[in-house]
Amino acid sequence: MKALTFRGEKTVKLEDHPKPSVQDSKDALVRVTLGAICGSDLHAYHMRIPVNEGAILGHEFVGVVEEVGPEVRRFKPGDRVVPSFFTACGHCDLCRRGWYSQCEKKSNFGFGEFFGSLGGGQSEFCVVPLADHTMEPIPEGMTDEQAIFVGDILSTGYFGAERAEIKAGDTVAVVGAGPVGLMAIMCAQLFGPSRVFAVDMVESRLEVAQGLGAIPIDARASHPAEAIKDLTRGLGADSSIECVGTMPAVETAIHCVRGGGTISMVGVPDVSEASFPYLRMWLKDLTFRSGFCNVQAHMRPLLKLIESRRLDPTVIISHRMKLDQGERAYEMFDAREATKIVLTP
Amino acid sequence: MKALTFRGEKTVKLEDHPKPSVQDSKDALVRVTLGAICGSDLHAYHMRIPVNEGAILGHEFVGVVEEVGPEVRRFKPGDRVVPSFFTACGHCDLCRRGWYSQCEKKSNFGFGEFFGSLGGGQSEFCVVPLADHTMEPIPEGMTDEQAIFVGDILSTGYFGAERAEIKAGDTVAVVGAGPVGLMAIMCAQLFGPSRVFAVDMVESRLEVAQGLGAIPIDARASHPAEAIKDLTRGLGADSSIECVGTMPAVETAIHCVRGGGTISMVGVPDVSEASFPYLRMWLKDLTFRSGFCNVQAHMRPLLKLIESRRLDPTVIISHRMKLDQGERAYEMFDAREATKIVLTP
Amino acid sequence: MKALTFRGEKTVKLEDHPKPSVQDSKDALVRVTLGAICGSDLHAYHMRIPVNEGAILGHEFVGVVEEVGPEVRRFKPGDRVVPSFFTACGHCDLCRRGWYSQCEKKSNFGFGEFFGSLGGGQSEFCVVPLADHTMEPIPEGMTDEQAIFVGDILSTGYFGAERAEIKAGDTVAVVGAGPVGLMAIMCAQLFGPSRVFAVDMVESRLEVAQGLGAIPIDARASHPAEAIKDLTRGLGADSSIECVGTMPAVETAIHCVRGGGTISMVGVPDVSEASFPYLRMWLKDLTFRSGFCNVQAHMRPLLKLIESRRLDPTVIISHRMKLDQGERAYEMFDAREATKIVLTP
Amino acid sequence: MKALTFRGEKTVKLEDHPKPSVQDSKDALVRVTLGAICGSDLHAYHMRIPVNEGAILGHEFVGVVEEVGPEVRRFKPGDRVVPSFFTACGHCDLCRRGWYSQCEKKSNFGFGEFFGSLGGGQSEFCVVPLADHTMEPIPEGMTDEQAIFVGDILSTGYFGAERAEIKAGDTVAVVGAGPVGLMAIMCAQLFGPSRVFAVDMVESRLEVAQGLGAIPIDARASHPAEAIKDLTRGLGADSSIECVGTMPAVETAIHCVRGGGTISMVGVPDVSEASFPYLRMWLKDLTFRSGFCNVQAHMRPLLKLIESRRLDPTVIISHRMKLDQGERAYEMFDAREATKIVLTP
Repeated sequence: MKALTFRGEKTVKLEDHPKPSVQDSKDALVRVTLGAICGSDLHAYHMRIPVNEGAILGHEFVGVVEEVGPEVRRFKPGDRVVPSFFTACGHCDLCRRGWYSQCEKKSNFGFGEFFGSLGGGQSEFCVVPLADHTMEPIPEGMTDEQAIFVGDILSTGYFGAERAEIKAGDTVAVVGAGPVGLMAIMCAQLFGPSRVFAVDMVESRLEVAQGLGAIPIDARASHPAEAIKDLTRGLGADSSIECVGTMPAVETAIHCVRGGGTISMVGVPDVSEASFPYLRMWLKDLTFRSGFCNVQAHMRPLLKLIESRRLDPTVIISHRMKLDQGERAYEMFDAREATKIVLTP
Repeated sequence: MKALTFRGEKTVKLEDHPKPSVQDSKDALVRVTLGAICGSDLHAYHMRIPVNEGAILGHEFVGVVEEVGPEVRRFKPGDRVVPSFFTACGHCDLCRRGWYSQCEKKSNFGFGEFFGSLGGGQSEFCVVPLADHTMEPIPEGMTDEQAIFVGDILSTGYFGAERAEIKAGDTVAVVGAGPVGLMAIMCAQLFGPSRVFAVDMVESRLEVAQGLGAIPIDARASHPAEAIKDLTRGLGADSSIECVGTMPAVETAIHCVRGGGTISMVGVPDVSEASFPYLRMWLKDLTFRSGFCNVQAHMRPLLKLIESRRLDPTVIISHRMKLDQGERAYEMFDAREATKIVLTP
Repeated sequence: MKALTFRGEKTVKLEDHPKPSVQDSKDALVRVTLGAICGSDLHAYHMRIPVNEGAILGHEFVGVVEEVGPEVRRFKPGDRVVPSFFTACGHCDLCRRGWYSQCEKKSNFGFGEFFGSLGGGQSEFCVVPLADHTMEPIPEGMTDEQAIFVGDILSTGYFGAERAEIKAGDTVAVVGAGPVGLMAIMCAQLFGPSRVFAVDMVESRLEVAQGLGAIPIDARASHPAEAIKDLTRGLGADSSIECVGTMPAVETAIHCVRGGGTISMVGVPDVSEASFPYLRMWLKDLTFRSGFCNVQAHMRPLLKLIESRRLDPTVIISHRMKLDQGERAYEMFDAREATKIVLTP
Repeated sequence: MKALTFRGEKTVKLEDHPKPSVQDSKDALVRVTLGAICGSDLHAYHMRIPVNEGAILGHEFVGVVEEVGPEVRRFKPGDRVVPSFFTACGHCDLCRRGWYSQCEKKSNFGFGEFFGSLGGGQSEFCVVPLADHTMEPIPEGMTDEQAIFVGDILSTGYFGAERAEIKAGDTVAVVGAGPVGLMAIMCAQLFGPSRVFAVDMVESRLEVAQGLGAIPIDARASHPAEAIKDLTRGLGADSSIECVGTMPAVETAIHCVRGGGTISMVGVPDVSEASFPYLRMWLKDLTFRSGFCNVQAHMRPLLKLIESRRLDPTVIISHRMKLDQGERAYEMFDAREATKIVLTP
């Protein structure tokens, strides 16, 4: 089968791999019908996260079940499915508390040996281990494009919004209007805010954000935390959702919220440790949350919201390409020529 | 000043009354700029709730402050304001727990001697006691029609929705699509449900409900609890909001929810006591909430949501009339010829 | 094997039954080491709930795993376990929302054909279906007597307390100080109330309640709702937990709470439908919850609390007998000569 | 009147000051009956926080109302009261959201000109501005020693515990067993944890912690985060409460919690900014909260818990001295010869 394969810094090749098969009794073999390139794929591309040569890339994908192991109960061949970007067992201490993202058996798709040696979704087939607790069925009538982001960035946006503790009538600042930020804006709207501010420096992203009901704040034109204070009569936003992962974005996210407010960070931090305003946190009674999205906890309600057309994550797709154009797709995405690219095998 | 005055069963007269004035140091005198007729005014009209002859009617109103007592801090002459339909002190045990609707000094506007001898809003002037804890300022740029329902039915709809414990992706059934039910639909949407079902028997109400994003269920055409089960693969809705107050409506609200679900009743019960399905409640782990709306707790966020155009309660206004057409307005509203009537003095 | 067997109204016989065995791949065969007689066993004894002749009784029990089906993952022979009083699948819609008590595959132990044809725990052996989602391991060092009530009445007391929404400093009224009521008192204390009132008419129960830190209120000596109001400066309790199931107890539970308060009913209602104070509920903004205990959701934390000696449910055991004294044990329990009887095979 | 007065680094003098009097209509003049020395007084003593020479010290105190301004409604001369350590208006945006500690009119007692020029409680008299929203009445029968800590360290301990999101059965680590840490242990117990770990390096503090039901962990004898992991089968605590304010303590608090857990910091940070483990926070889905205690939100329930003897904060008082021994008291407290000193004028 064909698969996009990591071959060193900024090098992705479409290569032939043996078709994988069910090994464990809880595995499902999925024929991929759509894959996507995610911002964290670029982290691999630039070797900012460890990835071995030869790893099949891709962790955002949907497909059709071809075969299941004997202990898979929720799925059978022919079912259309969307996997989470990581596996979970459903039985360990933290899974039972609902923290699937903290599962002791967690592995990630598409990053090779360092993350559990799973396959990837930028390919024709992928084995999904622990299938019952890792995938969800796609509701009848829902397209692949509608479903695909439930396994990663839509859930991440939701996770960020939920942990921001938004109450009806609140103001929320979303820092970063890339794919995750746009999903966070969409999901923040589910909690009844009066206003959502979207902070970014790219005009086109701010336009999409505005189309999703957000008030755009161009960080090139004004100091964003100050702009948000001005727009809230000096108070600040009730909460913020950080969707970038850089320290200037974190600083904006912390400085734009009012006393007693909450900062919810879902951007992947680009450093391990960095400076933190402990005194400000204490003086202003702030809450700072950060996290690797707990996808499995959110897939079901998000699929229902897409099914009933309350959410339309397809708006962020800018390019539809074929898997064998994948090398070019990575170059375009890396050059920021595309907001979001999906790939059909 | 002119005021609509209760004169016995189904008899409302526009009469002259002395202009009221500030008596207590916490009073505010408000010049009414818009009043509305509410479903509970009809309860008085039909003497289903006690009301003395001579009482000035009306508890939904907005206006401009003319004069304040020396201990009023939040308001000054010239301020545009929307009062709650009842007063609260802000200091008693239950006010301090946030239960203003359970204030030991609560009095209701527009029902005369039996509810604290306050004035009413279907008049030219009204004194608002305990003004600091009873009214909110109307944000700049907001019209009277936008603000008026915050003092009663919009807050009631919100209260019903909030107590239904709706989570993102849930299904919600709103039983009754009269003015309060329509507000409940609008407010339920603030909590991110995947679907809101609206149950009623009046075609025109179901159409408005549909316009607010609800799925109409005509209770004449099908058994509504069964219809909701059919639409939820046999499960039932996650929660329901009862907005009528009659026992058949309560029964629908209880029978349409799934195990573990919540029924939130805001309809004014038309009986003091009646039969209740204790065994079903127990077998299905249900929660039943009922309540007199805690208006003061919800006015601020609702005003923000109107200001940012997330809520538009004016959609339910079907008739705009003058205060001196009030007698006719009561007849029309009683005959169900109007969804909602507002009156300009 | 020997088992207490239902043989008609007020007739329980110790009979020989064939030893059961693992039938389904998710079954576990448990050798019972301790069983208990529960208040709901008396409902069967008096035929107030349907039960067939020949049914093995008992749904509160602990034991040692003898054999497991091939798909049981969490248990192996030799493990000491405490089952819930009902089975749950862990996969259906309501299990996934955490409502195991609403599982579509729920069956109850010890009530024969009408509740899923399971065995019972007042016997030497019992098969536990869906073992992974029905039982919990007993922590090392914990006795059978400490663990046994986790599968039913302790969880029920906890469920009642949790749904009463107790906040630190609150006052709580527990109506009924029988075995479930005493567990509810114990569990209410976990939520930091300032005072717990225990209402009953039996002196000895009130004494045990007092030993658990409750303030006893003898319902023969005073009107309990009035007594509670007097003790709370006229306000009423913040919440109540109903642990009897009779209408006078429900009335006390509703009338003793303050405006905005919560009534949590865990007593099994002794009628299907009965009168309910709708108007009071509405005027006072009350919440009424009722429920069949969601045992599986609470077993783990309760076992931890017992393990760390924060909870000691053994205090309610009044009689320790042998299984072959079971007929006499039923007579004593029915005659209220015992608070709680446990039986060793 | 006599008052302990700041006179430069490590210099406190008992001096004569003019007796203060009611200036504003919302002031209350309180005759102090008991004051205490708090850890943050030592910050002033060592000039780690700005304080002017001549400032009257003390922000933990109780007393009797001597005189009130005309707009004070909740108090009258003769009332025994306990003030919060800061004032709040009750009307601003953040007060109305319940964040009194973020009040725009907040001033602190006992730190002179830099914190609002209020008086202090280590004196014979103190004026309490905004009295209605700053003080609470002391319940009948409660001693000054029982009530005094409600205005600061007991509320701080409670605030820390509440924000740690403890659920029944959880494990909680309290880092630091000084006065605030001991209060946090006491308050954590209100939320039903199975175990509370107390980390400190002072034997006598660990003993008091153990007396409050905590499991002592001596940070000199073992790496505390590792010790907590060992005690929780490698998982870590469900949450931690940081009560020191130094970076090593913060590190312990962050590293000892499990994935998905919460760190609640109430220690006053001893630096403005410092390194923070962003990547760990993200990988482990952690929540970090910090805060200046929202005293006014917690005083009432805490007073009820003391009244009903669920809390006994007096256990931490090690020394009872006279106000005119105050200079010596500061020396002893600074030398760690005393856990907590109270002063009688």
